[in-house]
Amino acid sequence: MKVTVTIDRRPEIADPEGTTVKKALHELGFTDTVSVRMDRVIHLEIDSDDPVEVKARVEEMCKQLLANPVLEDFEVHVDA
Amino acid sequence: MKVTVTIDRRPEIADPEGTTVKKALHELGFTDTVSVRMDRVIHLEIDSDDPVEVKARVEEMCKQLLANPVLEDFEVHVDA
Repeated sequence: MKVTVTIDRRPEIADPEGTTVKKALHELGFTDTVSVRMDRVIHLEIDSDDPVEVKARVEEMCKQLLANPVLEDFEVHVDA
Repeated sequence: MKVTVTIDRRPEIADPEGTTVKKALHELGFTDTVSVRMDRVIHLEIDSDDPVEVKARVEEMCKQLLANPVLEDFEVHVDA
């Protein structure tokens, strides 16, 4: 089954990469850029037919490896 | 206006980060992981009321800075 995990930095946590990209956009003339936030998407393929089990397993992967629960929120979406 | 840019590595381009994460997941016991691909999402806020103009400007940002057109495909979605 295909699974999409979106990992977003929590709103209250600073995003230095986004700040740097915003500065670079302003220097390139894109001065109407108000804010930039960089997030991550992970596309996984899991060898299983049970969407409930797959969701639980991928949530466990997020907790153990894929996301940093102190800084980031994650959402697991089983596609098919 | 809020804009979401999704930047995906082209399917024919190797994804070393994804390969490393897959290996780590297998080592943690998630041996049913068939494939892992890491992509990027950028959330922008642009000071403009014209969605057509905003889309064109953000596409230009992607070409100049945000994406690597040799390795990556991007998609710009104006949210509101």
